[in-house]
Amino acid sequence: MAAMRQVVLRSRPAGNPHPSDFAIEEAPIPQPGPGQLLLKTLFLSLDPYMRLGLDEKPFGGANGVSIGAPMIGSTVSEVLESNSSAFAVGDLVEARTLWREFAAVNDTQPGIRKIRRDFAPLSAALGVLGMPGQTAYAGIVTIGRVKAGETVVISAAAGAVGCIAGQIAKILGARVVGIAGGPEKCRAVVALGFDVCVDYKAPDFARQLQADVPGGVDVYFENVGGAVTRAVLPLTNYGARIPMCGFISMYGIGDTGPGPDQLPWLMRLIMLKGLEIRGFVGAVVGGAKAIEALETWLAAGRVQLRETVYDGLEAAPAAFSKMFESNNNIGKTIVRVAR
Amino acid sequence: MAAMRQVVLRSRPAGNPHPSDFAIEEAPIPQPGPGQLLLKTLFLSLDPYMRLGLDEKPFGGANGVSIGAPMIGSTVSEVLESNSSAFAVGDLVEARTLWREFAAVNDTQPGIRKIRRDFAPLSAALGVLGMPGQTAYAGIVTIGRVKAGETVVISAAAGAVGCIAGQIAKILGARVVGIAGGPEKCRAVVALGFDVCVDYKAPDFARQLQADVPGGVDVYFENVGGAVTRAVLPLTNYGARIPMCGFISMYGIGDTGPGPDQLPWLMRLIMLKGLEIRGFVGAVVGGAKAIEALETWLAAGRVQLRETVYDGLEAAPAAFSKMFESNNNIGKTIVRVAR
Repeated sequence: MAAMRQVVLRSRPAGNPHPSDFAIEEAPIPQPGPGQLLLKTLFLSLDPYMRLGLDEKPFGGANGVSIGAPMIGSTVSEVLESNSSAFAVGDLVEARTLWREFAAVNDTQPGIRKIRRDFAPLSAALGVLGMPGQTAYAGIVTIGRVKAGETVVISAAAGAVGCIAGQIAKILGARVVGIAGGPEKCRAVVALGFDVCVDYKAPDFARQLQADVPGGVDVYFENVGGAVTRAVLPLTNYGARIPMCGFISMYGIGDTGPGPDQLPWLMRLIMLKGLEIRGFVGAVVGGAKAIEALETWLAAGRVQLRETVYDGLEAAPAAFSKMFESNNNIGKTIVRVAR
Repeated sequence: MAAMRQVVLRSRPAGNPHPSDFAIEEAPIPQPGPGQLLLKTLFLSLDPYMRLGLDEKPFGGANGVSIGAPMIGSTVSEVLESNSSAFAVGDLVEARTLWREFAAVNDTQPGIRKIRRDFAPLSAALGVLGMPGQTAYAGIVTIGRVKAGETVVISAAAGAVGCIAGQIAKILGARVVGIAGGPEKCRAVVALGFDVCVDYKAPDFARQLQADVPGGVDVYFENVGGAVTRAVLPLTNYGARIPMCGFISMYGIGDTGPGPDQLPWLMRLIMLKGLEIRGFVGAVVGGAKAIEALETWLAAGRVQLRETVYDGLEAAPAAFSKMFESNNNIGKTIVRVAR
C-alpha cells in the first residue's frame, strides 16, 4: 500500500497555534469504498476558524480535532478514482479532505462540489469563489444590508474575507474603510479599491480611524475583536449593522479573557446605538447566489483575486500559525500541495 | 408665588441609587409662557433606564441629570392652564415634566400626548398603554419576530416591560418562560399567563431554566445582563433573536465590570449560534401600532394591567432605589403625586 503524508495535531495550542503543535507523518493512501472518490489534493485552504476546533472543548462541539488526528481543512482536489456516478475521473472538486495528500470521501459529503476548470485559478474555489467569498457577500449584502453612500468599516481588511467584503461594499456604492496591520498591508488594501485603510498598529490608530469616518459608521464587518472593536463601535451611527464574522484576536483565549469585563460596555452601546449584531454562516446565508455574483464581478474585473500561496504540505503548520501573528499575507492563504 | 415640591439629584449614585442621593425641595410653581401648558402632576413613572442618566458621563449624553437639578421623568398630568390651541384646560396628558408637582411645558414637547379619560386607569399611560407597552411590543413583535410554537425567555419578567412582553408572546402562541427574583414574583408572573417562571435566586437556577426550555430558546428578551444572561444564552437555538431592552444588573457599574472579560464568550456564542442581538427604542419601533394593539388586547381582557403604586412625591426616591434591589414590585412602578 503506497504511502502519503498528512499533518496531524500533536498538541493543543496554548493561545495562538505554533508549528510544533503539528506533526507531519506518513499514512497509507486510502482505498475508496462504494460511493466514494479517491482524491488527490492540489490546494489546501488555511482559514482562521480552524483554530476554534483545536481546544479541548472545541467551539460548538463541531469540527473538533483529536490529538493525533489529521487537521481539518477544505481542499481543491482531483478525482483519481470514482465509485460514484456523480463524479468522473479527472473532475476537480472542492471537498473537506483534511491536511493530507490523498483522501477517500463519500460523494454525498456536505458541500462537495465540482470546480470549473478554466474560469479562474483553481484555488479561487477556496477564496473569492468559495466559502470566504460567500462569507463576504453574506456579511455585506444580507446581514449588513449595505446601501450606496453608507460608510462601511472592515477589520482584517487584508484577509481572505475582508478584502472581498470591501470590494463588494465598493460595488454597492459605499465608502469603505479598511483596518489592517502595517503599512504594507494597508497599501495592498487601498490597491483593492478601499477608500482608505487605517493601520491598527499605529499609536494614534483610534484617532486616525475617527478622522476617516466623519459621517460615522453604518456597517462594521467584524473579523477581529479586542482593541480594534473597542475603537470602532463608539463611532457607529444609530442602527448600525455588525455582521459578526470572526474575532481572531481572541480565538486562543477560551471563553473569557483578562479583566475588566467589557460586556457592560458592549450592552450599553447596543442599547444606546440600537446596534444590530448578528452571527452567520457564509456558505448558508450567501449560498449559490454569492458565488454567481462573485463569478460575474470577477469576470468583469470588478473584483480582484488576491492570494498568498505556500508550497508543499509541509509548509502548512507554519503558514497556519503565522495567520495569528499579523503576518504580511494579503488575501486568501493557500497551500499548494501538488501540481 | 405659590410653592411646590420637587425631587432633585443631590449626589451621583455609586452603583445602585440610594434615597440619600436625592433631596426634596421647594420651588415656585412655574408660570406657563406662550405656547405652554401649566400641568399638575397626577402620576409619576419610575423606570430603570433613568439610572443611566445619573452618571457623571451619562449614557449617550442624552437625558443626563445635573447635581441639584430635578430628576427626569414622565408623568400623567392635568392641564390647569393652556396657552395652546392643541390642549384645553382639564385635558389629561402624558408629558416629560420631571419629578415635581407642577410643570410648565411647551405644547410641542416631543412625545406629549392626550390620554383617554375613561378607557383604563390613567396611570396605564405610563405602563401597558405607554412606553413600557411599546417597548414590550417592539421587542416581541418587531425585533423578536416571535412565532407560534417558539420558546421565549423573558428576564425581569415581573417588571413593567417584562410582564407585558410575556403576555404578548402568549397571544402570539409562544411558550413563554419568565425569570424573576423570588417565589412571590414568580407566582405573579405565572398568574399573568406565562407558562412557567424560574427564580434566579434559586441555587439551581441554571439547571431549572435548562429543564424548562427542552426545545431551546428562540427569543431571549434581555432586561437584566450578568449571571442571568450567562445562564440563558448557552440555551439559545441557532438564529435566536435577542431584543436588548436593558441590563439592569449592570447599570451602576459604568463601562466595565470586574474581570474576567466575558466579551470573548459572547462573541463566540454570537458566531456559533448565529445570534441576532439588537437594541431598540420601544416608543419609536413600537409606535402607535403598539398602543392600538395593546388597547385592543386590554379591552378584550387578553392583557392584564399590573402596577405597584406608591403614594406621594416624597416616596419617589426610595421607590426608585428599590427597583435596583430586587424588590417585590409587580408590573409598572408608579408614584401617585396627586389625586
